[in-house]
Amino acid sequence: MKKNMSNEPADPSRRAVLGSSAKAMAVAAGAGLLSACGRGEDSSGTPASKTEGANAHVGPGELDEYYVFFSSGQSGELRIMGLPSMRELMRVPVFNRCSATGWGQTNESRKILTEGLTPETRKFLASRGGTYANGDLHHPHMSFTDGTYDGRYVFMNDKANTRVARVRCDVMKCDKIIELPNQHTVHGLRVQKYPKTGYVFCNGEDRTPIPNDGRILADHKKYQCVFTAVDGETMKVAWQVLVDGNLDNVDCDYQGKYCFSTCYNSEEGVTLAEYSAAEQDWVVIFNLKRIEEAVANGQAKMIGGVPVLDGRKGSPFTRYVPIPNSPHGINTAPDGIHVVANGKLSPTVTVFDVRKFDDLFEDKIQPRDTVVAEPELGLGPLHTAFDGRGNAYTTLFIDSQICKWSIERAIRKFQGEDVDPIIQKLDVHYQPGHNHTSMGQTKEADGKWLLSLNKFSKDRFLNVGPLKPECDQLIDISGEQMRLVHDSPSFAEPHDATIVHRSKVNPINVWKRDDPMWEDARNQAKADGVVLESASNVVRDGNKVRVYMFSAAPTFSLTDFTVRQGDEVTVYVTNIDTVEDLTHGFTIVNYGVAMEVGPQMTSSVTFVADRPGVYWYYCQWFCHALHMEMKGRMLVEPRKV
Amino acid sequence: MKKNMSNEPADPSRRAVLGSSAKAMAVAAGAGLLSACGRGEDSSGTPASKTEGANAHVGPGELDEYYVFFSSGQSGELRIMGLPSMRELMRVPVFNRCSATGWGQTNESRKILTEGLTPETRKFLASRGGTYANGDLHHPHMSFTDGTYDGRYVFMNDKANTRVARVRCDVMKCDKIIELPNQHTVHGLRVQKYPKTGYVFCNGEDRTPIPNDGRILADHKKYQCVFTAVDGETMKVAWQVLVDGNLDNVDCDYQGKYCFSTCYNSEEGVTLAEYSAAEQDWVVIFNLKRIEEAVANGQAKMIGGVPVLDGRKGSPFTRYVPIPNSPHGINTAPDGIHVVANGKLSPTVTVFDVRKFDDLFEDKIQPRDTVVAEPELGLGPLHTAFDGRGNAYTTLFIDSQICKWSIERAIRKFQGEDVDPIIQKLDVHYQPGHNHTSMGQTKEADGKWLLSLNKFSKDRFLNVGPLKPECDQLIDISGEQMRLVHDSPSFAEPHDATIVHRSKVNPINVWKRDDPMWEDARNQAKADGVVLESASNVVRDGNKVRVYMFSAAPTFSLTDFTVRQGDEVTVYVTNIDTVEDLTHGFTIVNYGVAMEVGPQMTSSVTFVADRPGVYWYYCQWFCHALHMEMKGRMLVEPRKV
Repeated sequence: MKKNMSNEPADPSRRAVLGSSAKAMAVAAGAGLLSACGRGEDSSGTPASKTEGANAHVGPGELDEYYVFFSSGQSGELRIMGLPSMRELMRVPVFNRCSATGWGQTNESRKILTEGLTPETRKFLASRGGTYANGDLHHPHMSFTDGTYDGRYVFMNDKANTRVARVRCDVMKCDKIIELPNQHTVHGLRVQKYPKTGYVFCNGEDRTPIPNDGRILADHKKYQCVFTAVDGETMKVAWQVLVDGNLDNVDCDYQGKYCFSTCYNSEEGVTLAEYSAAEQDWVVIFNLKRIEEAVANGQAKMIGGVPVLDGRKGSPFTRYVPIPNSPHGINTAPDGIHVVANGKLSPTVTVFDVRKFDDLFEDKIQPRDTVVAEPELGLGPLHTAFDGRGNAYTTLFIDSQICKWSIERAIRKFQGEDVDPIIQKLDVHYQPGHNHTSMGQTKEADGKWLLSLNKFSKDRFLNVGPLKPECDQLIDISGEQMRLVHDSPSFAEPHDATIVHRSKVNPINVWKRDDPMWEDARNQAKADGVVLESASNVVRDGNKVRVYMFSAAPTFSLTDFTVRQGDEVTVYVTNIDTVEDLTHGFTIVNYGVAMEVGPQMTSSVTFVADRPGVYWYYCQWFCHALHMEMKGRMLVEPRKV
Repeated sequence: MKKNMSNEPADPSRRAVLGSSAKAMAVAAGAGLLSACGRGEDSSGTPASKTEGANAHVGPGELDEYYVFFSSGQSGELRIMGLPSMRELMRVPVFNRCSATGWGQTNESRKILTEGLTPETRKFLASRGGTYANGDLHHPHMSFTDGTYDGRYVFMNDKANTRVARVRCDVMKCDKIIELPNQHTVHGLRVQKYPKTGYVFCNGEDRTPIPNDGRILADHKKYQCVFTAVDGETMKVAWQVLVDGNLDNVDCDYQGKYCFSTCYNSEEGVTLAEYSAAEQDWVVIFNLKRIEEAVANGQAKMIGGVPVLDGRKGSPFTRYVPIPNSPHGINTAPDGIHVVANGKLSPTVTVFDVRKFDDLFEDKIQPRDTVVAEPELGLGPLHTAFDGRGNAYTTLFIDSQICKWSIERAIRKFQGEDVDPIIQKLDVHYQPGHNHTSMGQTKEADGKWLLSLNKFSKDRFLNVGPLKPECDQLIDISGEQMRLVHDSPSFAEPHDATIVHRSKVNPINVWKRDDPMWEDARNQAKADGVVLESASNVVRDGNKVRVYMFSAAPTFSLTDFTVRQGDEVTVYVTNIDTVEDLTHGFTIVNYGVAMEVGPQMTSSVTFVADRPGVYWYYCQWFCHALHMEMKGRMLVEPRKV
């Protein structure tokens, strides 16, 4: 068995280059030498590749070929872009508070934002307006059926407040958000590819006590790390597994048997020096069938309302495969066989063969026997994408490059053959994190486009002050050589992206009146004897007032309504326009109230009318030549003194 | 005097086309026939102009020639785009709550968001988290010196909550927001062109009682409309003027003597039928010198803490010039002479000669004598832009076209000559609102580019569900014929835009340590004997705890800190990295806390630590190869029971 590694993470016998590289980095890090920009200044001296950009041009009125579901990192929203034009087609509010749509304010959105929270968090947020107003959306991934995208949902994580969300692709709106109990942050997220999604795999990153109630504080040896599988249909936690180390990124196979996560803190330390002390960390492989059986057999412990198994070392549910220090991304190739773990602090990537995992779990082979290649690519390999033709594209964060390499040649080299797996290195600008190829995370990878999501842009765009955009670069990979065709600036932070062919996505143009989004409004209207679509009603119920109106360009059905100071007012607006693209809005001046009301949609908002006087409401979505005139008055009678 | 109009708004003697047009529209509006999309379906049948798009291409690493300051309407942020690439370079949070930067959460932003509010609003927001979380940002305009942009500030309005904000162009961050007292909504906003800005002119749109405290409610005859001039240097209200009607848009001259607003509800009604009943509305002209003298002489009444003059009909401060029903935009040409008011419900635009305004205020001429042309352009003229070569470009909302016409020919036609002022009509997609030419609102209009901000996009982009993007189209106007070169989708709502040559804008790359933004932090640190740039301090002050740390990639100076449940904690983070583009962030997991900390910036956030346990904080702005490891722990000791 060649180049096998010990199961002991602290074994320093591995390749000298790894050891020295990791150590050099730790030293450099301490001195600030590896700060992205300090390094970037070297790269910026390299002129951009000669480009033409012709095939990225999408003329006026022409449609893009691909949807890109872009995360926005700490902006908390999902972004939908067109590719190759790289135009932002839509922002879907998810974890953020959206001024335009009223996400975080409407009753419909607040239900979604609150119903999946743990009781502890609900209590915590009670004095904070009831919802989080921030999120850190890292990894958006579309649901699969049989190894390719099925256009049903996009799933995504919130690293900041440990949540998982789902966006419905028929309407491109978030319909479910859940908090993961027991877990502290959720970083890596990917979805089951086969037979379908199925599971949404969620890596817990930080280690904390369980329960995290203050009884354990500084004693980090008692902290735990949790891996979660969410059922993508019900959006409930299916099960959790306790693991060693901190989890980073995750992916799964095309057979529906395994998922696997990188780990970057096998030391289980709490300082930078401790995190990167060991020469090795690992990939954890999860055996889905064994876990499901154990949960079904009642072997799991119910903690925080969900079944939890112990998957730490020595358990039947997991295997820990040692790889060089602090790996980051992990990516399954479209061949359904190879899995690439990216070295980060090591200049290598580690290639696994998933066909060997059965034997590993049967203890017929050693963990490192699952490794079939480990090519050295350059400094700071973070993520790898694929073209479906056997080539891999790895981002080199520190080198500010994309490295194109051959999986097959890497395997031959690992077997001792004198062959160079590297095909080309292309400068990117600067410090790439995730990358993604068109359909590249499916069995239908088509090898046309590569996106490099670069963390720094510096001199690539007009200066906009101390805060710069990120820089997402579009690269043509259809030929032998990669070719840079477009620089796309973006606001914090295009953490990850999924490129989906337009044939997979089929949104509707106008809401269906029976959409579950406003089920509560339908029920309340029924109880009040009101027909939403033709309503002009003000229903008083003690100090609660329900105001029902419809909108039809350029009017609201109520030109005014009267409430009393201190009333709890709920306004329901139903847009009865049936024309595509005819969105209305409802804003109350000086009341901090605004919401979107799409064609055939009902939206509602509840507030206390504690400010007496005349307050105009108006439509804030330009809808008609007489749009400015689409308004009415809320008259708030002052409290009797 | 040709084509003079009566001063009586209800006079129906004016052009037959106007009367019939307005009436037809009112009827059509009632039946929903003029809804933008219903009409748009005809336009969509027209194929897009033959285009090449070559000169809109900006290759990788190349810089745009212009900055565009884009409003975002109900999204509440300012957007900075590059032109001609139409790429979004930055989002500047202003009236919105920003998950990424912590705008609305950091102490620095909350000070800006609250200090300019009226006492009544501060009280109203006390139970709502202290700040508005939404805004409706319509009109972003850069400060002028001597008739052209000076790169100091961009000013903008919030229609939703009656505020005016300023963005500093050295750092591209908002530094001041004020609420306008007495006023209800602020719609049109433009800035003084000469000698400098100077005044920021703010149109009150809706009529409400003053004070709006509930004593007057339904009796709309007692409502008032207010025009405000804000001092752009101090960001205080300089003065207000009561006016008749509702104000819509505003502009001013190049001489520093006058500003002028369109009015669309001279009827002072409160229903759609009333708004558009009269055949005529008006433009109000404000005499700046007379107003300043009156305020200086103590003639103004102090209301809501600001000086208010009565500028209703018959006052020395204003003149009311009748023009066709419900005008919308108003735009001063770069020649410094002509002003175009756009007809909206009339197919005409009305051209004034500002040189006649002196005589009007001296009562030497009649109001309509200031009109020098009134060409009929098409259906729904909303806004006009200029190329500096004597041509004007007017958006036709209902026709979905841009009409290019000659000012000089329109004047000749008005004088009786048989000449057609219209040069070309170009289809846009669909329903354009504002438009803007490169440097076109300055004396340096360069006639290269025109942006048409279209309200509907429908079939122009990949379908993203019921909510569609708007569509901002880039048009080359450098030649004889307009040429459409690019479709740019954008999220709600690119209401207005200002195109500024890059030579006018010079932001810094790294914050200066003495920036006023974090003056309070500096003062507090001094009082605590802490040096922000080298701090690792936890200062307890009763149940208030101040945590000081610095960040240097990839570490925070504190790996952990301990507080007690119930403490009011303020965390100050100072980014000591000096490298361009090296922004850090500070997020506390499961605490809803996140903020941006730019290079050499100090940011702070205050919260109650009412959740015991271990909470990791981390850097959310990717900064280094060891970015994932840039974190620490907040340990919250449980309350003693």
